[in-house]
Amino acid sequence: MSEDSAGTSLAQGLICPAPHVPDDRVQLGHGSGGKLSAALLRERFLPHLGNETLAELDDGATVPVAPHRLVISTDTFVVSPLEYPGGNIGSLSVHGTLNDVSMMGAEPRYLTAGFVLEEGLPFAVLDRVTAAMAEAARAASVPVIAGDTKVVERGKADGLYLCTTGVGELSDGFRPAAHRARPGDAVLVSGPIGRHGIAVMAAREGLRFEVEVTSDAATLHPLVRTLRDRVGRAVHTLRDPTRGGVASALNEIAVAAGVGIVLEDNAFPIPEPVAAACAVLGLDPLYVANEGIFVAFVEAAVADDAVDALKRHPLGAGAARVGTTVAEHPGLVVLKTGFGGSRVVDMLPGDQLPRIC
Amino acid sequence: MSEDSAGTSLAQGLICPAPHVPDDRVQLGHGSGGKLSAALLRERFLPHLGNETLAELDDGATVPVAPHRLVISTDTFVVSPLEYPGGNIGSLSVHGTLNDVSMMGAEPRYLTAGFVLEEGLPFAVLDRVTAAMAEAARAASVPVIAGDTKVVERGKADGLYLCTTGVGELSDGFRPAAHRARPGDAVLVSGPIGRHGIAVMAAREGLRFEVEVTSDAATLHPLVRTLRDRVGRAVHTLRDPTRGGVASALNEIAVAAGVGIVLEDNAFPIPEPVAAACAVLGLDPLYVANEGIFVAFVEAAVADDAVDALKRHPLGAGAARVGTTVAEHPGLVVLKTGFGGSRVVDMLPGDQLPRIC
Repeated sequence: MSEDSAGTSLAQGLICPAPHVPDDRVQLGHGSGGKLSAALLRERFLPHLGNETLAELDDGATVPVAPHRLVISTDTFVVSPLEYPGGNIGSLSVHGTLNDVSMMGAEPRYLTAGFVLEEGLPFAVLDRVTAAMAEAARAASVPVIAGDTKVVERGKADGLYLCTTGVGELSDGFRPAAHRARPGDAVLVSGPIGRHGIAVMAAREGLRFEVEVTSDAATLHPLVRTLRDRVGRAVHTLRDPTRGGVASALNEIAVAAGVGIVLEDNAFPIPEPVAAACAVLGLDPLYVANEGIFVAFVEAAVADDAVDALKRHPLGAGAARVGTTVAEHPGLVVLKTGFGGSRVVDMLPGDQLPRIC
Repeated sequence: MSEDSAGTSLAQGLICPAPHVPDDRVQLGHGSGGKLSAALLRERFLPHLGNETLAELDDGATVPVAPHRLVISTDTFVVSPLEYPGGNIGSLSVHGTLNDVSMMGAEPRYLTAGFVLEEGLPFAVLDRVTAAMAEAARAASVPVIAGDTKVVERGKADGLYLCTTGVGELSDGFRPAAHRARPGDAVLVSGPIGRHGIAVMAAREGLRFEVEVTSDAATLHPLVRTLRDRVGRAVHTLRDPTRGGVASALNEIAVAAGVGIVLEDNAFPIPEPVAAACAVLGLDPLYVANEGIFVAFVEAAVADDAVDALKRHPLGAGAARVGTTVAEHPGLVVLKTGFGGSRVVDMLPGDQLPRIC
């Protein structure tokens, strides 16, 4: 093993010629914990993500929290391709994790990031990913306070994978949860569905549509704040319908709360290009991933107020009521069809679109 | 795409034959967020890792914290092979992350875990990894409270990768940090060096030694507690010397604190089989990874007390004083050799042993 002998020689203070490696790409040694690791951190991560806490370069970060309950959420990201219209794996890792925190009613405060890099990944790609991550974190006012990077051999990953953990603070009685949905609740979506999944799939398969579909990925806690400020505890449940789409999220909620859900056909806002792409590809938009909308279950009495509040915020301009929660058929999501009938909207057994996030 | 057409048909309530897939392995659909994902969680993760918080299956976890500063640390694990004498990637991911938290003086409280699984990974392997993770977490009294799993295609990972985040509470003035090392400090190690790296490398390369070397991986916070209880704030710096070994950890501390470090030759406790393996393989044990020891910088006046306290604990039985911090040659680590000379113990530029953690 050339690394070993080189390592030992250097440890003894000798200098031996290093093998030629291109300097615009990730090398295995960048994961070593040695000088190359330090250079990677200094040159590739800190310029984008640097802040006072991260810059301490300790084994972890020390942060203050108010004396409350914390919300902690972890997400792994393996989206393929790494970059697509409207974002990349870096911004996605911020949006996805912060949204999980805010769906639980918490204000996101801190982020950590773990990278698995494939040997040979161009630094140009890594820089765009890290820059997008930094930009998304800045826009959300949530710093990345700790991180770790490992490198695996060429062919043992797919460019890079990312794992982000978000920490948020619960500050009052606002505590939406899947199991809190109640019969009679109005079911809302905060915006049009299907954009993220179609944008990623089109990029992956090299498809071009007349109107480009961009990912909807966004940090939703400002919109959650808007909703909370208007209708407060009348919000029973929030969930961001990512992989598996709206259908999977609603099924999870129906099961967790032991309620039935009745959806109105044609009530879902579906952007025209998404509808067209789904029709061509044989996809059901209810199962296509989103990264910038949530479903909300609110008391029926405040449904109009809630929709109005959402619509006044740029992130919620496309908000709509799409259904109602019922005591009948607990655990089952049913879509009323245009012909007076109805069909069950089940969870998929497996993937509609793999590696979408 | 067969997934798409199958997905759409099922969404419409029809049943179409699924392709045959062996049921003892990870499938791509296990990462879908649909029924297979739910089954993976229910059958593979919850039986091992289940606790009240995790069982809520929300997008994150809500946990109480005392009104203090938190320590948050994230680590990614890509060790190859996944299993080796003395542990596997699951237990390693607990030990490694909790140790980072306790090196900062905090009591570890919570863990989260993000998995990237390769399609085709045998469930038998995943179960052993998850069981070891659960056992390590139980032994440390730290629950895994949230997690996420993604699946990538065969050939896009190497079995599995893991990312764990640890959260700990700082409860008083105990705040060791790299930059707090001072000239005159005694440099201690809490146990024999080199076991983890040699154990992993031997398993990877199929090497057999007369006496098997097992990884030293262990959760160190009980040992930190022992040290803190005996000498308290006289502990200036703690660091677990993982990838890059003791040499890299000491170099980082020397730079962060702006001090020099003088190491005594032959002072480091090196297990006989580790020394033999290093001699045969041309490795310097100072650069070999550890996962169950720390280096501690303490005021010289309490050095004997500190070593005594460590030695009384099973995890610290092999503790020893190995050197001293000096005002001269700041940033430089120097080893006094047996012949009255000395040599610089530099950081390695790259890897001695890649994918060791």
